[in-house]
Amino acid sequence: MKVTLSFEESISRDVSIMIDVLRASTTITTALDKFNQIIPCFTPEDAFKLKKETGGVIAGERKGAKVEGFDIGNSPNAILNFKSDSKILILTTSNGTRILENMNSQVLIGCLNNAEAVAEASIKLAKDHIDLVMAGVWGKFAIEDYLAAGEIIHQISKKCSDCEIDEYAKSAILASRNPNLVRDAFFDSTSGHKLKNLGYENDISYALCQNSTKNVGLYKGNSINKIKFK
Amino acid sequence: MKVTLSFEESISRDVSIMIDVLRASTTITTALDKFNQIIPCFTPEDAFKLKKETGGVIAGERKGAKVEGFDIGNSPNAILNFKSDSKILILTTSNGTRILENMNSQVLIGCLNNAEAVAEASIKLAKDHIDLVMAGVWGKFAIEDYLAAGEIIHQISKKCSDCEIDEYAKSAILASRNPNLVRDAFFDSTSGHKLKNLGYENDISYALCQNSTKNVGLYKGNSINKIKFK
Repeated sequence: MKVTLSFEESISRDVSIMIDVLRASTTITTALDKFNQIIPCFTPEDAFKLKKETGGVIAGERKGAKVEGFDIGNSPNAILNFKSDSKILILTTSNGTRILENMNSQVLIGCLNNAEAVAEASIKLAKDHIDLVMAGVWGKFAIEDYLAAGEIIHQISKKCSDCEIDEYAKSAILASRNPNLVRDAFFDSTSGHKLKNLGYENDISYALCQNSTKNVGLYKGNSINKIKFK
Repeated sequence: MKVTLSFEESISRDVSIMIDVLRASTTITTALDKFNQIIPCFTPEDAFKLKKETGGVIAGERKGAKVEGFDIGNSPNAILNFKSDSKILILTTSNGTRILENMNSQVLIGCLNNAEAVAEASIKLAKDHIDLVMAGVWGKFAIEDYLAAGEIIHQISKKCSDCEIDEYAKSAILASRNPNLVRDAFFDSTSGHKLKNLGYENDISYALCQNSTKNVGLYKGNSINKIKFK
């Protein structure tokens, strides 16, 4: 099994793991506790339309802030505290949902919260190639996505002795080994500074909790559902 | 001062640090102990021609092995043990010398052996932008170049409090912090395996010695000389 690391676009036609850890992939992974289905969409207009059609809750952000008229922002903590009977979440974010559009493989949603679980799921699902895809920040490398990828690749390497991990993917393992440096890098990143300025500092701490959940989202037919193995 | 990390091509018109740690930049840095001038060239034919013109020693490799008819291979240990009165070294390697050709900035030669010294020299020389350029292996990311870059950027960050280090460059610092993991990654890299198979294992150990020299090569007018500050 080949394991690679990519930026924005996946090079695998087998299994990809989408990582936008501050915050889309962290929010999605948390939302799977409360919602049966998460529908990513690309504009606020689409989100309002889908809300009418499905009765879902709409969540999302532009430039980090909640979109006007939305039920909640793209915040895992806000999702945790939100009360609703709906089982559908409609989510639009700046970057994470946008890059899902171009994937030609089975796509899992990865973050630090589900690092071990998504690693395990990817190994079960893949035939020959797992590609970890960093969402980045509008075309720029984002250190938090790289470090979360490193932790997931580390988990894959522990569970898959015949995996061939390429050198770029290996470099991410090395970078992710020191928890204090990882923590500092999250808070000191471009995304981290933006979230602190918007009052979402607790979402950064939340995103740093490794293996706090077994939830793994699978993107299929334009929606994300919790993956279950028989 | 901006500090960035690039692959194969420099994005700075100010100062670049070329890193091809297994082995061109390590060999060049060591050769500055014995030779006043190192002339990189791009084909064995050019090397033979330059030897006739200058009386220099010719060193180099293709696919890691010494080129037939050359005085020595691209090996820092071979350079150390080579006896010659010539003060000129002509060097051709697969990758490192090739990428020097396209640089539009002042180019320093960086490796782990001179990490602190090249960091210091780059800060003294640069006006606004230091770009570390990983040579890689024929268009592919090479983990040893990334890790050596990380150590040099770490040294820059210690000496330059107002340097703005971009997130990709910062990720290399994190990856380079654990000496045991760095060592394993060098030996387990594509280049490392190739060198072991060719009997050059001692060149890998040699390349791992941090800050063993103050030599810093500056590439200017098609030759490399030891940089000296007044």
